[in-house]
Amino acid sequence: MGYPGRIVPVNPAREKIFDLKAFPQLPDGIEHAFIMVGDVEGALEDCGRKGVPVATIFTDGFADAGAEGMARQKALAARARSLGVRLLGPNSMGMINLSGRCPITVNAVLDMDVPAAGAASIVSQSGTMLGTVLSRGAARGLGFSKLVSVGNESDLGVGEIVEMLAADPDTRTILLFLETVRDAEALARGARAAHAAGKPVVAYKLGRSALGERLARSHTGALAGEDAALDAYFGACGVARVDMLETLIEIGPLLAGRRPPDLARAPRVGVVTTTGGGAAAVVDRLGMHGIETASPDGRAPIIDLTMGRQAATYGAVVEQLLAYPDCDAVLAVVGSSAQFHPEHAVEPIIRARRAEKPLAVFMTPQADRSLALLAEAGIAAFRTPEACADALHAYFSWKSPREPQRGNPPEWPKDVPVEGRLTEHEAMKLFAALGVPVVETAVVRAPGYAHPIAYPVALKILSREVAHKSDVGGVVLGISGPQELLSHAKALQAKGDALLVQRMERGLAEAIVGYRDDPVVGPLVLVGAGGILAELYNDAVVRLAPVGEAEAREMVAAVKGFAALRGYRGLPAGDLTALASAVSAMSRLALLAGRPVLEAEANPVIVKAQGAVAVDALAVLK
Amino acid sequence: MGYPGRIVPVNPAREKIFDLKAFPQLPDGIEHAFIMVGDVEGALEDCGRKGVPVATIFTDGFADAGAEGMARQKALAARARSLGVRLLGPNSMGMINLSGRCPITVNAVLDMDVPAAGAASIVSQSGTMLGTVLSRGAARGLGFSKLVSVGNESDLGVGEIVEMLAADPDTRTILLFLETVRDAEALARGARAAHAAGKPVVAYKLGRSALGERLARSHTGALAGEDAALDAYFGACGVARVDMLETLIEIGPLLAGRRPPDLARAPRVGVVTTTGGGAAAVVDRLGMHGIETASPDGRAPIIDLTMGRQAATYGAVVEQLLAYPDCDAVLAVVGSSAQFHPEHAVEPIIRARRAEKPLAVFMTPQADRSLALLAEAGIAAFRTPEACADALHAYFSWKSPREPQRGNPPEWPKDVPVEGRLTEHEAMKLFAALGVPVVETAVVRAPGYAHPIAYPVALKILSREVAHKSDVGGVVLGISGPQELLSHAKALQAKGDALLVQRMERGLAEAIVGYRDDPVVGPLVLVGAGGILAELYNDAVVRLAPVGEAEAREMVAAVKGFAALRGYRGLPAGDLTALASAVSAMSRLALLAGRPVLEAEANPVIVKAQGAVAVDALAVLK
Repeated sequence: MGYPGRIVPVNPAREKIFDLKAFPQLPDGIEHAFIMVGDVEGALEDCGRKGVPVATIFTDGFADAGAEGMARQKALAARARSLGVRLLGPNSMGMINLSGRCPITVNAVLDMDVPAAGAASIVSQSGTMLGTVLSRGAARGLGFSKLVSVGNESDLGVGEIVEMLAADPDTRTILLFLETVRDAEALARGARAAHAAGKPVVAYKLGRSALGERLARSHTGALAGEDAALDAYFGACGVARVDMLETLIEIGPLLAGRRPPDLARAPRVGVVTTTGGGAAAVVDRLGMHGIETASPDGRAPIIDLTMGRQAATYGAVVEQLLAYPDCDAVLAVVGSSAQFHPEHAVEPIIRARRAEKPLAVFMTPQADRSLALLAEAGIAAFRTPEACADALHAYFSWKSPREPQRGNPPEWPKDVPVEGRLTEHEAMKLFAALGVPVVETAVVRAPGYAHPIAYPVALKILSREVAHKSDVGGVVLGISGPQELLSHAKALQAKGDALLVQRMERGLAEAIVGYRDDPVVGPLVLVGAGGILAELYNDAVVRLAPVGEAEAREMVAAVKGFAALRGYRGLPAGDLTALASAVSAMSRLALLAGRPVLEAEANPVIVKAQGAVAVDALAVLK
Repeated sequence: MGYPGRIVPVNPAREKIFDLKAFPQLPDGIEHAFIMVGDVEGALEDCGRKGVPVATIFTDGFADAGAEGMARQKALAARARSLGVRLLGPNSMGMINLSGRCPITVNAVLDMDVPAAGAASIVSQSGTMLGTVLSRGAARGLGFSKLVSVGNESDLGVGEIVEMLAADPDTRTILLFLETVRDAEALARGARAAHAAGKPVVAYKLGRSALGERLARSHTGALAGEDAALDAYFGACGVARVDMLETLIEIGPLLAGRRPPDLARAPRVGVVTTTGGGAAAVVDRLGMHGIETASPDGRAPIIDLTMGRQAATYGAVVEQLLAYPDCDAVLAVVGSSAQFHPEHAVEPIIRARRAEKPLAVFMTPQADRSLALLAEAGIAAFRTPEACADALHAYFSWKSPREPQRGNPPEWPKDVPVEGRLTEHEAMKLFAALGVPVVETAVVRAPGYAHPIAYPVALKILSREVAHKSDVGGVVLGISGPQELLSHAKALQAKGDALLVQRMERGLAEAIVGYRDDPVVGPLVLVGAGGILAELYNDAVVRLAPVGEAEAREMVAAVKGFAALRGYRGLPAGDLTALASAVSAMSRLALLAGRPVLEAEANPVIVKAQGAVAVDALAVLK
């Protein structure tokens, strides 16, 4: 690749490696070592001795190879720290610095002609993806600046490298190919630095299906984490997320130099095309993402210019749409002419006066030359209608990184234990201390089971062991008076030391409000439709905890099952503001010093016309 | 393209068109006319006079241009019929017959080198797609046989052309690019003919989102039809459906020569790869479609062969997976070597002993040469992980065409009108006549409101006008005795002439069972979760009506909201067999002579531990 520095092969068994003189041992003055021998530990000692600042380890058989390999990797990383050598890998395919003409990799992609450097850099947990991105980009005239395979991330990880790229003058966009997130805090730091530097970060992450998650785990040796949790995490970090692999390669020019749109309404795209069918292929998918079209004449959803007849107007329409304040982005679709007659529509797009607005181009035929022309002009162009729609969706879903939420940590209630599983009564006290409205509750004991709560009431066993009281017949609902209570209490007494009486709450619907300290991304808060709906229909919204009232209201607004409470079909409206307050209150568990709570759940929370109240409570401490 | 026949330009104003002598008027002996003049009607008369058997009309301004254009088109088609000229179009881009080296089109794609003919043919409602498919196919070595743009389908339509392709010896697979379905019966006939000839039919259809549907309608001038209805239709016709445009281009070799798998369990794919990340990109998406992996060693979900070390084994593993009875298809993923070293994995795939089993190849880098090598060998290869997973999903979801369902037409109940909107009582009688179990119902009148039904009962107004009785306060539930009935009846009387008393039914859950005679695809039956769930979560299953008991049970099994009734989380099981019987019974509306019913709905149907019963009924006749 024309690397101007010195390349030093080290191999005591050979005179030459390719055309280069082989050294029997590591000489002085090496800036970056690439280790591909079995005795990684020995090579690392050499690097330490010779003061090599960074070593990339291609050799595998570490965290990627079970518990023993993991132990080997930990020892290696510890030794590297004490030697002052930074590590990339093990199990790294290396890195390619195109701007600096410095490839340190074994990737076979370098058999091809050296592609031009571009403005996007990629950090990948899959080594193969270096070649994938580079070769696919090259075929359509898209270059890259740095490509880094992080391997097992024993030392240098995705987050730290993103932070470096945020400071790299050659990088305008940062792309991530992820199978998991190993250090969520470091990546969040890197993403914030990139945002501050005005550099979009875009992630393609595997493990969206249970099968993919299992595979990612077995492949990386790391906990992959639930996709919904990671999605919440990316959103909070200001990382845009794409669904398709080629979108990751093609999205750069769409986002470069832009800020997250943070729109408060459904996004609208202005569309101009020379082919109805081609435009429809993109627009149909935009519609599936809830994106709308906008056009200045207000009637037709798209502006359809048949080529040959109105070729002169294509560029003018692109400019008109870019200037039209009611559309948030412009989509230009070009049909058959894109292949051999870029002068008809592609060149007018390139010549159009550019606005601040994002512009995406989709061309229906194979049109490599036009793709390259557009890439050269810094205009986002897409090979498939799906990637084009995916990119626009990723742009519109992209949010600015969330400010770290602060707040006074709640007080831990005095008579609540600080470890193990809480009883429902203890959990209720904890929830109340957070500010979650809880049902009026009293512990009752034989012989009289006296309590101050107005009838009707519910009676439950109070147990530290039984998680699902209903399953063991430990709950009686709708008890109308003291006599009925007495007879049920006697029957239940055998199942628990004490019993709990609660006021019977009636409302319009049930919700679930949960909290979990995720091992990958940290504290999460969840709100979902009640009963089994959240699970059956995956109708729950997850965000990083804590969340303020406004964000909690956004979460509640995104739960489909609450449509009835929003007055759907004239059904009576529920107090979703109160529910959002309960969500925000629950999320304050994340503010407790030392974060003692592993998971907590109020299920159900009864949503009423006025107010919302938790009628069951569960909490497990670490 | 080397067409061996005679090409005759007709233009009275010119001496020559390109290198050909122009004729002032149509000569004798023309087999196919291509009309691109404004005076289409005059040109058609010429064709009629000269005995031209078929004319393609490129000119637009017919059904694509509003009501007036539609009238012009109808007149044109009628005239063509009487002249004995078959029409392709108007608004057709023409056709390309690569096997016969006969292009009759204005598509700009023909500026490229003439691609080799292949085994797939495409019928498209978008003219641009001829060039799209041809140029994208050519770039990866995939050829086509016939490409037909049907335009407005005033005469020759998608269905009839599919039927011709079913009989075409050069065509092995039939691809459809659809914006709508204009003649569902003709296409069903064509699809059955193709199935009988062993030729798979694959559709890519726009209009999946509401926005896309609106666009398709405005673009084609045809009713687009609801996507769920068309999906049911494609399934019943034996048409496989793909989600992405490039899948349509690439899927040919995967399906050619195959029959629908008609699997009774979740499909399983055996996976071999030289790149973990590349395989994961496909497998993750397979998981999203409910497709699983299978491997002979039973432990790892995929067989990961690092190249260089085990290159020799790649072909052997492909053969082993193809022979392994527990997997239904094989996915071979190739990393960087695919680009410049096809000998490592691509050639072993080509040499592997082929089984009956489908084999799909995904290559992570840009690998045009390998794509062409695989295409030449008739092996399905995909450019993107998404299209690869989409194709496998389409294959596994592909079903054999359903036999036309027959059965004795139900008797129309004597005292039920044969037009307009039925009252609830009449609709109940109709449903009962079909075999749908309905709630015990009696019409009651002042002054005594006597009835034979055991309390508790429900009381409803009986009105032909009021569709939503609850909205006008026309329903009282849970009336416990005659006195209560009397007082409610007096209050309701003002709102209707007569009143209806129904037994109060209690059950475990509610369902909706519906019927609709769709203007595009004909009679449909629907079953969904009750309340507002079917609508909120789109949790309903639609099939062409009528359906037998077995198909109705499949439908019920696919409704997520019935999970509780299937014993989810230990909840009491409901009689889903009875619900399925009700679905099958309702679907018999399609068997009535003249199909008088436009739509009908039993909502809710109460599903009990034993049995299921409709407690509300609505029917609208044509």
